[in-house]
Amino acid sequence: MPPIRSPHTGRIDLTHGAGGRAMQQLIDAVFRPAFDNPILARADDHARFEVPAGRLAMSTDCFVVSPLFFPGGNIGSLAVHGTVNDVAMSGARVLYLTAGFVIEEGFPLADLQRIAHAMGDAARAAGVAIVAGDTKVVERGKADGLFINTTGVGIVPAGIDISGDRARPGDAVLVSGTMGDHGVAIMAHRAGLEFETSIVSDSAALNGLVANIVEIVPTIRVLRDPTRGGLAATLNELCHQSGVGMSLDETAVPVRPEVLGACELLGLDPLNVANEGKLVAIAPATDAARLLDVLRRHPLGRDAAIIGKVIDDPARFVRMSTRIGGERIVAWLAGEQLPRIC
Amino acid sequence: MPPIRSPHTGRIDLTHGAGGRAMQQLIDAVFRPAFDNPILARADDHARFEVPAGRLAMSTDCFVVSPLFFPGGNIGSLAVHGTVNDVAMSGARVLYLTAGFVIEEGFPLADLQRIAHAMGDAARAAGVAIVAGDTKVVERGKADGLFINTTGVGIVPAGIDISGDRARPGDAVLVSGTMGDHGVAIMAHRAGLEFETSIVSDSAALNGLVANIVEIVPTIRVLRDPTRGGLAATLNELCHQSGVGMSLDETAVPVRPEVLGACELLGLDPLNVANEGKLVAIAPATDAARLLDVLRRHPLGRDAAIIGKVIDDPARFVRMSTRIGGERIVAWLAGEQLPRIC
Repeated sequence: MPPIRSPHTGRIDLTHGAGGRAMQQLIDAVFRPAFDNPILARADDHARFEVPAGRLAMSTDCFVVSPLFFPGGNIGSLAVHGTVNDVAMSGARVLYLTAGFVIEEGFPLADLQRIAHAMGDAARAAGVAIVAGDTKVVERGKADGLFINTTGVGIVPAGIDISGDRARPGDAVLVSGTMGDHGVAIMAHRAGLEFETSIVSDSAALNGLVANIVEIVPTIRVLRDPTRGGLAATLNELCHQSGVGMSLDETAVPVRPEVLGACELLGLDPLNVANEGKLVAIAPATDAARLLDVLRRHPLGRDAAIIGKVIDDPARFVRMSTRIGGERIVAWLAGEQLPRIC
Repeated sequence: MPPIRSPHTGRIDLTHGAGGRAMQQLIDAVFRPAFDNPILARADDHARFEVPAGRLAMSTDCFVVSPLFFPGGNIGSLAVHGTVNDVAMSGARVLYLTAGFVIEEGFPLADLQRIAHAMGDAARAAGVAIVAGDTKVVERGKADGLFINTTGVGIVPAGIDISGDRARPGDAVLVSGTMGDHGVAIMAHRAGLEFETSIVSDSAALNGLVANIVEIVPTIRVLRDPTRGGLAATLNELCHQSGVGMSLDETAVPVRPEVLGACELLGLDPLNVANEGKLVAIAPATDAARLLDVLRRHPLGRDAAIIGKVIDDPARFVRMSTRIGGERIVAWLAGEQLPRIC
């Protein structure tokens, strides 16, 4: 590690957030090499870049996941994937991210460096650049190690109109893969559970998959990533926004057997559990087969499935025909099932 | 206050960050009315808006100021001003902000509402809209009340090229007003000091002032807001970026007498103390008088002054001829003078 002024060797102290030389050294030693790109290298208090005329999509997310390192990723990779995905759900080509850090005094520099490198790697893999950043340090006990905010921008291709209020009765509802992997990976890790098959987070950038969708199925109406609150919260939100109901088939919803097993052990419903590399897609029924094909041809959509359809329902309920032949309402949890999952 | 599901009446709990109904209620009750605008109202996970072709400026900042409420503002107004100013320092017309919140469990809803309204008011006054947001809640003791990230975008007018690496020997160095007001207001408030004249933060949005500058002095080379680390850190940064030195006249640097008095009491140098509504402007010497005039005609630039000039100096020092006729180096503090000032 390059030399960083630090009285408590190897740990962040308050000088690293004070706007002076120590902060500059931290940026030069940790963030600049990890995020390496010419826009960031200008070192102004803002990033500048050219954009074409058109519609810009912008999204922001704070990450407070605990623990910071988990099977399948860490807070850094998650912070990149999460915001890339939120921007991509507009159909946009994601261009740039910013990154803001609130660091607790005493945080190990080696961990910060590992997290910063994971962010840089995730951004490069997704084809986006982290072009601006900010670092604040708070006293010991005033934060929980590290919180990260990422904010992203992208350009929505002409002719694409994707929004949560566009679901219409008759439309097909698809998911791009198995549900619940991220949340269960975190919870199982926290609980210290060991499973025969280890469960890892599905944290991944979906912008490549979305690019294929908007190119081949430009009639796509809704895209959303079922993160906090899981598939259940996402579908209820969409029903609320579009003023419709949904009818799902439980047997069609893909869930890994080991995730299902862990959920039973932990008392969780996989439909309430967060995903970080999956999307819900809603398109006219006539395009459903083509959409399914696009999804399945992509490595991140191999387990994609048509899970149900949009129906007319003034009550805006998400109904599901169950494995055992009944029907239940997929409820939108009022409260907290899984704190600090992202 | 509209009804919000909250077992601990009037306080944030973990359900408010869980992606479920309680979070939706919090957003609908607190943030949507405070930030009220049609882009935010779409309620997708991203904001979408039209931009013209050209150069976009983007900046991000995390706010961890303590205390959250201080003379002249609160963390909400500061979070809007801070990012508006960082984007504006590119010469850009600032368009949109995002806002991310990390809230400690138990935080009073009334305080959150007051802060959100201050953000909305500050944004409207600056002519920008808060178009996307995110809310996370962490357990009691895992944050210090509230942290806010804001990220902003703006459009840089054609023909304007402002950057920290453009200062050239001979250029004039100006400030838009008195130095040290924000930091001293916070420190005095923390220390419980009472002064005959109360000192308030200068927190303000400078985008209107910047618009005048770029219109009337398009040759402007450098703009930067001297926040953390104060004027001393900012000028040292600029010398470093441009590969130049500076020569200042201490008697020309505007400092309020009461701020100077408080600094003496608190053992601070006003040049190291943060400002949140001031800018440093560097322009060719031939444009200095015109730039000073533009600044002084604006309410936020009434106390503007030419404080020195850029000089050729391979050592990149900021030198200052002192009040008593000597010369000193204005050092870039290595460490922490004022923790959690913004």
